[in-house]
Amino acid sequence: MDADTFREFGKAAVDFIADYYENIRDCDVLPSVAPGYLINQLPKELPENPQQWQEILQDVSKLIVPGLTHWQSPNFHAFYPTGCSYPSIVGDMLASGLSVIGFNWLCSPASTELEMVVMDWLAKFFKLPAHFLHSTKGPGGGIIQGSASEAVLVAVMAAREQAVRRVKAAQPELSEGEIRARLVGYSSDQSNSCIEKAGILGTLPIRLVAVDDSLVFSGTQLAKAVKEDLAKGLIPAICIATMGATGTCSYDDIESLATVCEEHNIWLHVDAAYAGCALALDDYAHLRQGLDRVDSLNYNLHKSMPVHFDCTAMWLRDSHKIVESFTVERIYLQHKYEGQSDIPEFRHWQIPLGRRFRALKVWVAFRTLGAEGLREYIRLRIRLAERFEQYVLADSRFELFAKRAMGLVCFRVKGGNELSTELLKRLTDHKKIYMVQAIFQGKNFLRFVVCGVEPKECDIDFAWQEIQSQLSQLLSEHEVAKLKVNAPEEKKAEESHKKSVKVQ
Amino acid sequence: MDADTFREFGKAAVDFIADYYENIRDCDVLPSVAPGYLINQLPKELPENPQQWQEILQDVSKLIVPGLTHWQSPNFHAFYPTGCSYPSIVGDMLASGLSVIGFNWLCSPASTELEMVVMDWLAKFFKLPAHFLHSTKGPGGGIIQGSASEAVLVAVMAAREQAVRRVKAAQPELSEGEIRARLVGYSSDQSNSCIEKAGILGTLPIRLVAVDDSLVFSGTQLAKAVKEDLAKGLIPAICIATMGATGTCSYDDIESLATVCEEHNIWLHVDAAYAGCALALDDYAHLRQGLDRVDSLNYNLHKSMPVHFDCTAMWLRDSHKIVESFTVERIYLQHKYEGQSDIPEFRHWQIPLGRRFRALKVWVAFRTLGAEGLREYIRLRIRLAERFEQYVLADSRFELFAKRAMGLVCFRVKGGNELSTELLKRLTDHKKIYMVQAIFQGKNFLRFVVCGVEPKECDIDFAWQEIQSQLSQLLSEHEVAKLKVNAPEEKKAEESHKKSVKVQ
Repeated sequence: MDADTFREFGKAAVDFIADYYENIRDCDVLPSVAPGYLINQLPKELPENPQQWQEILQDVSKLIVPGLTHWQSPNFHAFYPTGCSYPSIVGDMLASGLSVIGFNWLCSPASTELEMVVMDWLAKFFKLPAHFLHSTKGPGGGIIQGSASEAVLVAVMAAREQAVRRVKAAQPELSEGEIRARLVGYSSDQSNSCIEKAGILGTLPIRLVAVDDSLVFSGTQLAKAVKEDLAKGLIPAICIATMGATGTCSYDDIESLATVCEEHNIWLHVDAAYAGCALALDDYAHLRQGLDRVDSLNYNLHKSMPVHFDCTAMWLRDSHKIVESFTVERIYLQHKYEGQSDIPEFRHWQIPLGRRFRALKVWVAFRTLGAEGLREYIRLRIRLAERFEQYVLADSRFELFAKRAMGLVCFRVKGGNELSTELLKRLTDHKKIYMVQAIFQGKNFLRFVVCGVEPKECDIDFAWQEIQSQLSQLLSEHEVAKLKVNAPEEKKAEESHKKSVKVQ
Repeated sequence: MDADTFREFGKAAVDFIADYYENIRDCDVLPSVAPGYLINQLPKELPENPQQWQEILQDVSKLIVPGLTHWQSPNFHAFYPTGCSYPSIVGDMLASGLSVIGFNWLCSPASTELEMVVMDWLAKFFKLPAHFLHSTKGPGGGIIQGSASEAVLVAVMAAREQAVRRVKAAQPELSEGEIRARLVGYSSDQSNSCIEKAGILGTLPIRLVAVDDSLVFSGTQLAKAVKEDLAKGLIPAICIATMGATGTCSYDDIESLATVCEEHNIWLHVDAAYAGCALALDDYAHLRQGLDRVDSLNYNLHKSMPVHFDCTAMWLRDSHKIVESFTVERIYLQHKYEGQSDIPEFRHWQIPLGRRFRALKVWVAFRTLGAEGLREYIRLRIRLAERFEQYVLADSRFELFAKRAMGLVCFRVKGGNELSTELLKRLTDHKKIYMVQAIFQGKNFLRFVVCGVEPKECDIDFAWQEIQSQLSQLLSEHEVAKLKVNAPEEKKAEESHKKSVKVQ
């Protein structure tokens, strides 16, 4: 493709994206396709000859869009949001265009340095402790990882290697294998699946401590678990606290966890994937308590900031502990400034060698919105969740399941799990809005999350009307069913009719 | 930013990228900046107020571009290429625009299914064994991972868990910890740094077996290493063969390695990060030998295909072995089709939960070029490397260090390491072309790789002239220095002059 054709194709794609967002409310948020829908429509082999961009772009509309779940739709209320914004899209396009691989400083100084700058900007915006800034003298700093999964795994692996060194130094008679076999980590049973997975992948089993009704994992619970494990001869190596758990957006008690961790030389990591954005708002200053005592922290810009996946900020109090654990050197990766400046070689802070220029989309998005724009982005989502919460409270058929937190409202239909699950099934089948459910202490509940690029009050009203209407229908059908149970002959007649229909 | 402003900004960014490529030969390939150059030019805090896109885009030109190493320049000859192309950039922009997170099928059916389709296209294009296709009944298939590092780590972790299960079943008296402590893996000492790192991260130490002058890691060497380790009570778990090693692009002997692996139940992974593209060409059919016997295989589209980072294809013979090892379930991640179809849940095949829609850029790039266009893309780079090789052979001051392989020529200045290292230093300081050196058996050599979006014969000629001219100057200065050694008084006079200059 020559440059002129690219100019045409690229600009048509820009218009395609703008059109997509301008009309996003017209689509059902969930697709109406069955497994195999796309596979069956595409050729089985790579086409031998070149195809025109016009045809390809048409196919994106015709074949791809109908098979999408529209994460950026304001009718998407599942999981947590995935951030996106126009400036982030353009910033990333520029990064794709430049296509540099910044695995060390020389491989593109701009890539490493811009990442340091935007991570410092964000740390200051969140008022994080100064030791997390690159601009503060010392071994701390921030890096962009791909995902919370990756950040947590990096923390687990680093904590593991640090624990092995520490125990080996104290008890040289133990073999490395013996030490590794006794390592254990901790997190709440409300923590994200990626934490349990990091334990499996990192061969450091994470004990998921059951929390009580408060949903909070605290030092008392950790101390108890640690004591039990020490008695068994295990070696506590890491604790992963959550700021905004996946189910209910609950916040662990970092201060009291830190006290226990310090006592036992346990690496304390905080997974603030979603709710970390609260740190930008003065109303949530209390969430900062204890953060001065953690070893590492991750926050997903691609969740609650207008930056698209993948973009997880990770801060380390002492990056040397990661570098020591991960460094593998080769002559071809060295350059003349290495070790002579305070610029980090980010390749030693992460799993892969290669690195995209992800700081560019962050920089473009941050500058386009400005600090106040970012705060308003977060506040808007909280306000809209409050609006939804009011609707739930005003309808006696529903109950809140947990306190609203940030942009998340957890609620359920009064009267048992089945009704909530059945309601969710109907909503999902109807495809107008998309939520998922979670479970705590045997109780299912629905999670309503404010998502989308530009959610409005009318979107919240739309969702609530859909929920009310589906519940009303469900309840009225239940009423009819109950009446039928009371009139068994009628039911029998209906069943026999169904049977005959089936046979035909 | 509203849609109309995005249309303007996005289109200006498209033009920016086209202009960048049209003028890429005008820039030095290496930047002229010192550490801290960008940090010192940017504000220390996130700006409070919004900024206009025009200002931001200007800053990309003014502040970012001067700090880039131009990986897409035809004067970049370091490491291996990183692929890029106009259609790939547009495909990825569309993916950013849609911003879906395809961690299970329902989360965007198009994302999972298009990935299955393009991975099958590529497997057929490479004539890989049928069991690697999704369309073949069975547990095999392909997935897009972020990088070779990630693919290798996934293989290491899966091999580790499979070995633990297998040994535990055979010797239930052993504890899991005892088994893990005895696991060992193998690769050549020519393999990429990510393999050694995967061993560290995955707690499965990889023994780097020294290869002989042929540079080939073969079954004989593996059998010897395995025998030694078995005698020590170790448990061989994985062997990672390389197709196109980082230093010299040497190819390991997969067939003979497979024989040893099968005998000892060792997982055989092939890292074909760069040279895998050779499988597209009939001339390289011999490289396919043994691939029917490997457990997993990775190839970086973002190296030798016109697809930009990150995009690593990984094929598995039996995906169940990964899924078993990695699966962590949560109620909110389930959907009604799960387990009812042959569609994979890719989240269980990889480290992170989240997934970008990376198949889109592959699909757009593949269709734009067509199969024949892709083959020609590969062939062009081989032809240009052959041209460079001829230049080296024709100049008696140089010698080839290894056989040219694909787009890589390894060579050195005759007469010791110092001359080659000094030549490289001068070339790097002069910034017109960028190469790196590698080392084998104590001998340094320079690696010339054909890179860039659209390399031409004139680019090879330019590089060669630069190399010749720098060497001529270097040699003539050495001559002068030698003469001076023979004329010590003159030298002394010069030194005394220098000293006085310094004092001033």
